[in-house]
Amino acid sequence: MVTIRVPASSANLGTGFDTLGLALQLYLSVTAYDTEGRAALSFAEPDGGDLLHQAMAVVFSQAGLPVPKLKLEIKSQIPAGKGLGSSAAVIVAGLYLANHLLSYPFSEQQLLNWALALEGHPDNIAPAVAGGLTTAMVLDGELFYQKVSLQDDLKVIIAVPDFTLPTGEARRVLPEKVYWRDCVRHLQQACFVMQSLATGDYRHLARAMDDEIVQPARQSLIPGLKEVIKTALQRGALGAALSGAGPSVIALADSNWEYIGSGMQEAFRDAGCQSRCLYLDIDHQGVQIIKPY
Amino acid sequence: MVTIRVPASSANLGTGFDTLGLALQLYLSVTAYDTEGRAALSFAEPDGGDLLHQAMAVVFSQAGLPVPKLKLEIKSQIPAGKGLGSSAAVIVAGLYLANHLLSYPFSEQQLLNWALALEGHPDNIAPAVAGGLTTAMVLDGELFYQKVSLQDDLKVIIAVPDFTLPTGEARRVLPEKVYWRDCVRHLQQACFVMQSLATGDYRHLARAMDDEIVQPARQSLIPGLKEVIKTALQRGALGAALSGAGPSVIALADSNWEYIGSGMQEAFRDAGCQSRCLYLDIDHQGVQIIKPY
Repeated sequence: MVTIRVPASSANLGTGFDTLGLALQLYLSVTAYDTEGRAALSFAEPDGGDLLHQAMAVVFSQAGLPVPKLKLEIKSQIPAGKGLGSSAAVIVAGLYLANHLLSYPFSEQQLLNWALALEGHPDNIAPAVAGGLTTAMVLDGELFYQKVSLQDDLKVIIAVPDFTLPTGEARRVLPEKVYWRDCVRHLQQACFVMQSLATGDYRHLARAMDDEIVQPARQSLIPGLKEVIKTALQRGALGAALSGAGPSVIALADSNWEYIGSGMQEAFRDAGCQSRCLYLDIDHQGVQIIKPY
Repeated sequence: MVTIRVPASSANLGTGFDTLGLALQLYLSVTAYDTEGRAALSFAEPDGGDLLHQAMAVVFSQAGLPVPKLKLEIKSQIPAGKGLGSSAAVIVAGLYLANHLLSYPFSEQQLLNWALALEGHPDNIAPAVAGGLTTAMVLDGELFYQKVSLQDDLKVIIAVPDFTLPTGEARRVLPEKVYWRDCVRHLQQACFVMQSLATGDYRHLARAMDDEIVQPARQSLIPGLKEVIKTALQRGALGAALSGAGPSVIALADSNWEYIGSGMQEAFRDAGCQSRCLYLDIDHQGVQIIKPY
């Protein structure tokens, strides 16, 4: 028996589109039991099961082997379709579990590239693998990342509205072209977000996270988005943004967490959305293999 | 008598356009002497003198005071019009010197904003002020920056060709619009450059610095640019790019400096340009006030 644990993650942090990602202490766990007499993988939970199977099958087929007979138990705290990296967590779990079961024939770089091919974008995969804050880069189908050392005074507040938003839909509203000057401002802001989190100098973090390209394009898909972010900042959040493709909203804060979170929920409610709030610490470990015996 | 010393800087580092800047141990020094009977500022060197006067005049006029009678002696190691931040160094020298002479009535933030207004872009100002590697951000006419802690194993090689390129000319060839996907790749690369330099993991630095928007647009203005960069990388540079608006080319390396530099000069020569090479350490101090007595 072996358990693999992968953290949820919040991608983008506003201006770091498809680049920055923050791992959260909210987990997907997959436990694999050796069993006799079972004909194929079986799943305790249908959601995410297909993707898990797909990911494991990639590794086994690369090794030239059939997928073994296993009983898998999936436990997930990560709500799906909410912009919290649930699919990246499932993919990473599948790839790393299969690689573990095969005694590590494949490198991290190979697993990252396969994860990218399954997920399509790198920004949740990197933090799911490495934990903490990551900056990801895709060149010629390969996923590279760097991990950023963080100050540990931050907590994360996630307001999760009661509807889901498929990433594909959230990506269709993005512009095809942007002004170079807007691209440059985004570049300056994204680098500034990363370094603000590294240095702990959060004075201009909120403005660095203030994305004027992606969030305005997605606003119509997420009722109340602008007001939820505004309320979080008014109540003392150091920065706030759409979490990944949404619909969840992330706020970073070093105090007043519940005051900020309840304000975000109220703003969602005013826009006609029920929501719940998660108060989370940052995960610094990324994917973990846990062998209970 | 007081001397102010400001470092040269190399902006962009490839993909960090108008964002990243690296301070270099190559200096502009301005010494101010109190003198009797002189009617106005006088300059030991005409180049840069006007800009220095302008910068000092901004500070004195903000203080509601006339520019005092001073003798100024300017010594500069920074070649002008080569993409090494000479104008930013002059501006920073003028503003900080004037603020010093007035006993510091103005904040760093005010000086940064005035420097930005004089220079037009932030990427050389931040490293000239702070030293090291900086990431700059401009929002509503204000310049914010963060300093990035660096590993100290890097040296900088600058190949300086024997022609100058006015920044205005180098900016006119930039595209008005870019594909969003190219903007995102740039974003990923720029963040990756910054974090590679912070962590000292330089494995993918060269590819992260490989700018596919600005450098191709400027290629026609700088004979041999592509070959100079290629040669630097072939000879072991960890990354190479146009320095600021050019025409100098910067290479970062942890060994083989002269082998890399001579190769860059040869590549410039093959394109019909004479050049000289500077082998520099990174400046970590930024603007310094030196009082000899």
